[in-house]
Amino acid sequence: MMTRTATAIAHPNIAFIKYWGNTNDALRLPANASLSMNLDGLQAETTLTWADDLSADTLVLNDAEQSGEPLQRVVRQLDIMRKRLGLTAHAQVVSKNNFPTGAGVASSAAAFAALTVAAAGASGQVLSEQELTTLARLGSGSASRSVPAGFVEWFAGDSHEASYAESFAQPSHWPLVDVIAVISDGHKRVGSTAGHKSAQTSIFQEARVADAAARFAACRRAVVERDFNTFAEVVERDSNLMHAVMMTSVPPLFYWEPQSLAVMSWVRDRRADGLSVCYTLDAGPNVHCLCLEKDAEAVRSGLVGMSGLKQVYMAAVGGPAHLV
Amino acid sequence: MMTRTATAIAHPNIAFIKYWGNTNDALRLPANASLSMNLDGLQAETTLTWADDLSADTLVLNDAEQSGEPLQRVVRQLDIMRKRLGLTAHAQVVSKNNFPTGAGVASSAAAFAALTVAAAGASGQVLSEQELTTLARLGSGSASRSVPAGFVEWFAGDSHEASYAESFAQPSHWPLVDVIAVISDGHKRVGSTAGHKSAQTSIFQEARVADAAARFAACRRAVVERDFNTFAEVVERDSNLMHAVMMTSVPPLFYWEPQSLAVMSWVRDRRADGLSVCYTLDAGPNVHCLCLEKDAEAVRSGLVGMSGLKQVYMAAVGGPAHLV
Repeated sequence: MMTRTATAIAHPNIAFIKYWGNTNDALRLPANASLSMNLDGLQAETTLTWADDLSADTLVLNDAEQSGEPLQRVVRQLDIMRKRLGLTAHAQVVSKNNFPTGAGVASSAAAFAALTVAAAGASGQVLSEQELTTLARLGSGSASRSVPAGFVEWFAGDSHEASYAESFAQPSHWPLVDVIAVISDGHKRVGSTAGHKSAQTSIFQEARVADAAARFAACRRAVVERDFNTFAEVVERDSNLMHAVMMTSVPPLFYWEPQSLAVMSWVRDRRADGLSVCYTLDAGPNVHCLCLEKDAEAVRSGLVGMSGLKQVYMAAVGGPAHLV
Repeated sequence: MMTRTATAIAHPNIAFIKYWGNTNDALRLPANASLSMNLDGLQAETTLTWADDLSADTLVLNDAEQSGEPLQRVVRQLDIMRKRLGLTAHAQVVSKNNFPTGAGVASSAAAFAALTVAAAGASGQVLSEQELTTLARLGSGSASRSVPAGFVEWFAGDSHEASYAESFAQPSHWPLVDVIAVISDGHKRVGSTAGHKSAQTSIFQEARVADAAARFAACRRAVVERDFNTFAEVVERDSNLMHAVMMTSVPPLFYWEPQSLAVMSWVRDRRADGLSVCYTLDAGPNVHCLCLEKDAEAVRSGLVGMSGLKQVYMAAVGGPAHLV
């Protein structure tokens, strides 16, 4: 009997230039390239054991045995990894997040990055980081961006191999802080996988995608040059564009809660007051307030004083997914 | 000395298919045709006196003598009317609204419809309704829709004469009620005239305009056939499309307040519960909840129970601008 175990840690990431809509749903080839930073301190930790004597794959998530779709989604990823690694064994997967699942902090990104890295690690085989980003992408598109370190770009690509992510700046390059205003820690009504498929039902998606390369270039340059004002303008615009597509899909997807709008307005007002802060929202109501380290405490204490927030997290720029 | 006086009453209107952006700012030729209903019970009442012995135009609005831009905008409209009517006299204008000014209930629409009708009426000349709609349009685009009765369509047109409004169904055709959730009765930060000019800075405006003829046709047919479900779907979509353009303009225009979003969500939930109600928002935070008469009281009492609302108005379908 062969058993091999590995544990991997991966961080969620917050996109500066968003991923919304695919050119190929099965391969999760995105309609446009995206940019993100990993979130230090928030993490998924996944221990995976390949064992010949298991009769089926199993998943324990946050101490609860999973079945149904959450399990099936992991099984599909394990099938991909088995095929790539030449394995036939089933796997026992035990995973824990230290942040709420499914509420706009990209839990699936961290989960599938950690799962992919643990699955490869437990096999004893060494895959390139670039290949790991493509394999993670098959489980959850944005998981590709949680594999490399720091500030990450994910190229859209027109094939499985071409749609990979890589780091373009290390965490130490620019000490940004993401102050996360948690407005709901419940599950979203419409998950991202279904949401991506709906993107093309908005008459605005085509224009959003057509303009994405220009936003990507402007945002990447702003990060490289540590130009916060340009960064803030393009990050908020990109978030607004994505949510505009969501709200004009058929049927419409509203991820914003009233309190999301209040925080967005507060962030714009504080930036007008001189704080280096801007907002972005993923497919959920929580507001990620991206700021320079010098202003992080002012942003945090301001948010803590607002009504209707469940919690406020702070995350610096995080490192890569890695085996422990 | 010649003096002639007339008093006109005009209702604001709520657009089902929105006007946002011009092909000609000076003539206020809109980028797309729009549809609306007049709001009974809410009104601007304007008394205008052409008097040879006045040394300048004067404006009293809601008992306050006006100067600066509010006066100048009326003077520009009076110049247009003087030219059309062959007059040289100045005018004394006294106007009253029975609803808050500048907060998403289209006060300028009612004001310029009443002003135009009063100016013509006081001259003793009879202009056609169609011409009055074009003259009112020069003061405020949506004022063209407050001149005819009931359910009104405003054709975009490519010249001053071609951009006119007319009734396509009388108030008695379909007893819709607009239950208006007033979230702010203050003035908007960015007025509609400046807003219209910003529409083209959104990468989404072109697609919004390109699809407008289809929405216009679907909405008009739904009103004619009294098909509330189709009406609700297209009205909410059109409102979402306009606000998506606003929020993605450069700089972005956010007219929604947190409580606007709460009411929109509440309306969608009540419709899912079986009430015939849908929402639309003009360039302001107030939410117009359009419903069938049978459900108006349920909508009103539900809104009255929500926190954060300043007031709830109810308006049936209103008649034309008219002399009294």
